[in-house]
Amino acid sequence: MKRISILGSTGSVGTQALRVIEANTDKIRVTALSAGNNIDLLEKQIKTFDPEVVCVLNIEKAAELRSRLGGKIPVLSGLEGLIEAASHENTDLVLTAVPGMIGLLPTLAAIDNGIDIALANKETLVAGGELVMKKAAEKNVNIYPVDSEHSAIFQCMMGNSYKSIHKIILTASGGPFIGCSYEELKNVTVEKALKHPNWSMGRKITIDSSTLMNKGLEVIEARWLFDLEPDQIEVVVHPQSIIHSLVEFNDHSTMAQLGYPDMRVPIQLAMFYPERLENKIKSLNLAEIGALTFHKPDMDSFKCLSLAFDALKIGGSMPAVLNASNEIMVERFLNREIGFLQIPEIIQAVMKKHNPVYNFDLDTLLEIDNWARRISLELQG
Amino acid sequence: MKRISILGSTGSVGTQALRVIEANTDKIRVTALSAGNNIDLLEKQIKTFDPEVVCVLNIEKAAELRSRLGGKIPVLSGLEGLIEAASHENTDLVLTAVPGMIGLLPTLAAIDNGIDIALANKETLVAGGELVMKKAAEKNVNIYPVDSEHSAIFQCMMGNSYKSIHKIILTASGGPFIGCSYEELKNVTVEKALKHPNWSMGRKITIDSSTLMNKGLEVIEARWLFDLEPDQIEVVVHPQSIIHSLVEFNDHSTMAQLGYPDMRVPIQLAMFYPERLENKIKSLNLAEIGALTFHKPDMDSFKCLSLAFDALKIGGSMPAVLNASNEIMVERFLNREIGFLQIPEIIQAVMKKHNPVYNFDLDTLLEIDNWARRISLELQG
Repeated sequence: MKRISILGSTGSVGTQALRVIEANTDKIRVTALSAGNNIDLLEKQIKTFDPEVVCVLNIEKAAELRSRLGGKIPVLSGLEGLIEAASHENTDLVLTAVPGMIGLLPTLAAIDNGIDIALANKETLVAGGELVMKKAAEKNVNIYPVDSEHSAIFQCMMGNSYKSIHKIILTASGGPFIGCSYEELKNVTVEKALKHPNWSMGRKITIDSSTLMNKGLEVIEARWLFDLEPDQIEVVVHPQSIIHSLVEFNDHSTMAQLGYPDMRVPIQLAMFYPERLENKIKSLNLAEIGALTFHKPDMDSFKCLSLAFDALKIGGSMPAVLNASNEIMVERFLNREIGFLQIPEIIQAVMKKHNPVYNFDLDTLLEIDNWARRISLELQG
Repeated sequence: MKRISILGSTGSVGTQALRVIEANTDKIRVTALSAGNNIDLLEKQIKTFDPEVVCVLNIEKAAELRSRLGGKIPVLSGLEGLIEAASHENTDLVLTAVPGMIGLLPTLAAIDNGIDIALANKETLVAGGELVMKKAAEKNVNIYPVDSEHSAIFQCMMGNSYKSIHKIILTASGGPFIGCSYEELKNVTVEKALKHPNWSMGRKITIDSSTLMNKGLEVIEARWLFDLEPDQIEVVVHPQSIIHSLVEFNDHSTMAQLGYPDMRVPIQLAMFYPERLENKIKSLNLAEIGALTFHKPDMDSFKCLSLAFDALKIGGSMPAVLNASNEIMVERFLNREIGFLQIPEIIQAVMKKHNPVYNFDLDTLLEIDNWARRISLELQG
């Protein structure tokens, strides 16, 4: 019986993870659940999954839930609570499905305790990839990717060695503004950006998908997960989102992973690898799909993707700055403080102000992250 | 240093295998070469690759080569010679790249001697799959597929277990007559059938590709290689021949293997598995390719494919009858004795005359094979 702690159980990935668990109660049980604000849903999840402990990031909401539950189970709160939930005793696997940099410290705490990671929080690796991967290697902890693209790469790598990778190809749906020119992107509203054609996800990742920053973060995440050089990572736009990513090996044989978009597949594999458990997901019908198409990403219009490649090539702390600044810009865009095109504009300005640091420790990283956030709030684009 | 015997070294797969060997002379050397008739090319190959023994199937040609070589190396001949070349001492791997049922006995002989098989002769498994796979399991011999489709499946299976296969999907280029109606196929000439759009291959397999019998034989071959039930095997037409085949697993995750059509990739992997050696083959560029398309095969027009599925479902000796009859019909078509549409017509008539035998031994199989060939020569369609 595997025991899992879920960080972000009320979000898109978290709720789908619980669906997988519900279908496999003979193989896995929940030790901890954590939410940001949504205590109504969390309360329902507690009734169904009976965790040993829960955490609510918002301290007031935590207090409210605590009083509702009347002491039946401990309700942790804040970042400290999240760290405790991530490293809860009796846990074999932590699913990190919280959005943003907040995932870093809980992930490190879990690794410190020898707990495997099902990673659905890409910002953790974008900012702290070197620290996280080093600690995971030291502690002999497995990191199973949950992002559909990285799960695809992970599956393509099964039975193969990292040193035989020639390149990886991350597929991108292109987002809701595929085909738009830079000029046309000027008029993008929050409402339009929140409508993703292929996936239903949280607000942060949906905006990131519309700017292609999400793909950029995935590029940097892949660099750490699969120990790659920047020039070994390509992005191709594939609007049908059926091929989730590919690996070309040294012998120029390319492996791909395909399927209808459904996060339960990568979630389930991260939970039960190397086993592939049966489920009720639709079987692939290529003749019905008809055509899979591909084209180069338009990095002139979608500058976030090109900024991410820049940050990756510069290395050191630059990806952390990109990530921190992006988190702030997405928030400011959602608050209607800035326009769509100011997202990359201000990120680029922040990156220009940063002198990258190499081989940094955790404190330095958190300092740089803070600095980038502060500057990102100040700049007007 | 791996030591290889090549059956069919002057054919399409054989010559490409020798190109792979030439690029890897530090890792593999040739112990035996065998050809059907082309002693001029074989003589050149002998000079370059310095085998310990050679075989020429045609007895007169063998005598001619023997006198040319002046006793420098033994020149075997006929089926017995092929069997000896296949099971030559000092050999780790036999590449069976001869077309047709003639490959069966040499393959069995190699397995008997504990020699691994790089299988490029699908008729062997179509007719004798049960016998071959049982003997390979007994002798702990590996069978590495060389057909691009089966190599794709083999690669999709790396790191996975057979019991987690939901279905496999073999891709078919559709051949030169893709989109033609049954009526239109009436007028197919030998010249037209010998022009394959994507692959340059021997005459037998090129005709089989034009009737889609090649795909049918591959379906039956896959049944044995990957221990599948008939309803676990699908065929989809994919004219670009970039995806070489796919496996859908129980979790509805599908793996695919892709690349520009080049037989050196599967040949090389069969030789050096699990290593993926570098080569000079072109790197995949999906954006340049633009679109991969798929549709259902037209089994009403291409009856050979539907006959192969019938034979597979009936099982027992029926696939051997299908295969034997097809070998004769292709010969008769190439000799302009029958029309294109008579190929499936007569095969179907022969299958109707056959009462399938189950759990047969080798002698029974050879008897049935002989019977099917005789009847196939007699029937006028």
